[in-house]
Amino acid sequence: MATLIKEIQLDGRTTDVLIEGNRFQQIDANLQAPEAMVLDGRGMAILPSFVNMHTHASMTLLRSYADDLELHDWLENHIWPLESRMTEEDIYHGARLACLEMIKSGTTCFNDMYWLFHGTARAVEEMGLRAMLSSVFIDFSDEAKAREQRDSTERLFGESQRYSDRIGFALGPHALYTVSKESLQWVKKFAAENNLLIHIHVSETEKEVQDCLARYGLRPVQWLEKIGLLGPNVIAAHVIHVTEEEMGILARNDVKVVHNPVSNMKLAAGSFPFRRMQAAGVQMSLGTDGCSSNNNLSMMEEMKVAALHAKLIHNDPTVLPAHTAFEMATVNGARALGLDCGEIAVGKLADCILVDLANHRLVPGYRLEDDIVYSADSSCVDTVICDGKILMRGGRVDREEEIVDEARAYKKKFQ
Amino acid sequence: MATLIKEIQLDGRTTDVLIEGNRFQQIDANLQAPEAMVLDGRGMAILPSFVNMHTHASMTLLRSYADDLELHDWLENHIWPLESRMTEEDIYHGARLACLEMIKSGTTCFNDMYWLFHGTARAVEEMGLRAMLSSVFIDFSDEAKAREQRDSTERLFGESQRYSDRIGFALGPHALYTVSKESLQWVKKFAAENNLLIHIHVSETEKEVQDCLARYGLRPVQWLEKIGLLGPNVIAAHVIHVTEEEMGILARNDVKVVHNPVSNMKLAAGSFPFRRMQAAGVQMSLGTDGCSSNNNLSMMEEMKVAALHAKLIHNDPTVLPAHTAFEMATVNGARALGLDCGEIAVGKLADCILVDLANHRLVPGYRLEDDIVYSADSSCVDTVICDGKILMRGGRVDREEEIVDEARAYKKKFQ
Repeated sequence: MATLIKEIQLDGRTTDVLIEGNRFQQIDANLQAPEAMVLDGRGMAILPSFVNMHTHASMTLLRSYADDLELHDWLENHIWPLESRMTEEDIYHGARLACLEMIKSGTTCFNDMYWLFHGTARAVEEMGLRAMLSSVFIDFSDEAKAREQRDSTERLFGESQRYSDRIGFALGPHALYTVSKESLQWVKKFAAENNLLIHIHVSETEKEVQDCLARYGLRPVQWLEKIGLLGPNVIAAHVIHVTEEEMGILARNDVKVVHNPVSNMKLAAGSFPFRRMQAAGVQMSLGTDGCSSNNNLSMMEEMKVAALHAKLIHNDPTVLPAHTAFEMATVNGARALGLDCGEIAVGKLADCILVDLANHRLVPGYRLEDDIVYSADSSCVDTVICDGKILMRGGRVDREEEIVDEARAYKKKFQ
Repeated sequence: MATLIKEIQLDGRTTDVLIEGNRFQQIDANLQAPEAMVLDGRGMAILPSFVNMHTHASMTLLRSYADDLELHDWLENHIWPLESRMTEEDIYHGARLACLEMIKSGTTCFNDMYWLFHGTARAVEEMGLRAMLSSVFIDFSDEAKAREQRDSTERLFGESQRYSDRIGFALGPHALYTVSKESLQWVKKFAAENNLLIHIHVSETEKEVQDCLARYGLRPVQWLEKIGLLGPNVIAAHVIHVTEEEMGILARNDVKVVHNPVSNMKLAAGSFPFRRMQAAGVQMSLGTDGCSSNNNLSMMEEMKVAALHAKLIHNDPTVLPAHTAFEMATVNGARALGLDCGEIAVGKLADCILVDLANHRLVPGYRLEDDIVYSADSSCVDTVICDGKILMRGGRVDREEEIVDEARAYKKKFQ
């Protein structure tokens, strides 16, 4: 299967883009491909689609279920009780809604951590996105629970092979305060043996830091390094409450840090030290977190809020400019996941969006990247392509009414 | 002219809404109005449309023209030189683009300050919005300039009467560092004589405060009170760098404060002390500021960022909940402008939006207000009504392609 996009804007010039199979095959003027389906690219620009590096996708079903609450009240009295009722079928419907929302706002790849793996995997498979999925690993330092979690991780890893190449399996130890040291070390070993990524929450709250200091006499990043968890295959979400020394540890171990500014602000978790992370040489990407703490999955909004947050925190309007935000939302995430996407270039995976240059939010149009980061919303995205396949055209996604209808039923079911 | 909206959701129940002339005439089930045009409201909810309380509308033409720069470099080397080239025709095209963008994102009323009054007024008249327009008054304490500004203000006030009731005239002294004390006092007197509002920037930067202290031995709000400017007809934009005493002065004088979180963060102007303002009893609404420091006019985004900013600054996720953000973006602004809109109630001006409850961003749909503040974007807005007239239906605005085409021409013209 081939797709030829004719006369599209790429980095300010007009070109043709040929996709064969799931990769960009040729990018040049006046391409011919008689067998290919032709997309008229006139009036549009091609950009890499977004990579959302920290999600709990099915939490779309908890969107606006409980807002503006204190963190522990929110989790213990609202989120956890509802989550405990969710079945694999619920997870599937929530993840389908998440995939729909991501496609609509230009995201084709996400790094997820949530319960009931197959519910999410089925939705991703059907909807055509790319995802790195981890089941949540929590043992609360209970040995029986730890055994059960290790067994289910091994089983799920085996079962995950049944899905297409778009779906990767990662390990999802929730956090150092919910997983025992022995289990974290088991995770590290299992990941090394099977060449897997590890997705973990790190230093999201000050409480986590204080508890870790009280328990181990070390700060979270120091302790995670000591027990051997850190390395280039670790994706650490949040990472707010860290010292310069810890940032040095993260950089030295090539840990991939995911910044979630909207969630961090909404829950008042704290301020992400962007400039100090950058100075320390830490690799950073962006994530929306789940819909219960955001309440959407828009990477456009996340880029803007990341830039605004950094400028405010560092009292400097030049920090985290549009180009950096755009890279954090695309190629940085792709690299962290070891995926060959996030850029429009020959040989790369064909994951991209076509944006409508006549959308009023992109006008007059001096700098497309600035417009996308600071002005755009989902209405600017016309076409979405993932793995060489068209997931949205003219703003329409296949079967979107059905997906929405089934998700709307949860209002009565969960309220 | 009458419009009957059938079977629409209002505050969670289904009702009919009858608009006659420019006001809500009846809100009840099973209304009959044989002469009225009927809108099918099924699957939608009616909400007050947004009131954007601080704009420089025609700066849409400067969208993404210069980002991520230090404030004075940005103003002096990029914004001002371009502004000095803008003609009334340019202002008209910029304001039309702004009106289009506002309609698309559910805003029907804005409080503007910009050059070349008639350019903006013509655009608002044509596009059907409601606006309070002030020409910028700047004299740099030059007496000849002051005389000229006073004359042109008097002339414009007279000329402004030619427009419809949707367009109000306000006085726009730029700031205390660009307008002499005598001119500010003249503005106060002219406003009192003609029952006009005064729109002014106050304490946007720390530099303004330091300069005021050095010059007058008083902080800006203290000094503005001393010279007699403050009162219930004053709309003060930004108001970031203020002490408790100044907040008390603002509350005592019933000054209307406009919070502009996106602009303040993007320019690293400082943190708005929301909770302390609230405790002092200050009236607060929301504004986007101009497109060169935002870079859009979305009040949905502004509500979310206002909530996120307050939670971060005060380290408390319960501060500035969704309902407060929604009120700041609607009825608070309407009241500050002395307008009878911002609420869906019998007798109020018929300014409203119909949102599509099947939009994926509003699903499952536990709390509409939370969804609008934290999840929605412009794609959720189906219909926009201002002054009883339909400005958008099914996401389409009359002549939108023409408006965009003319604004896109500025890319070549201004670059």
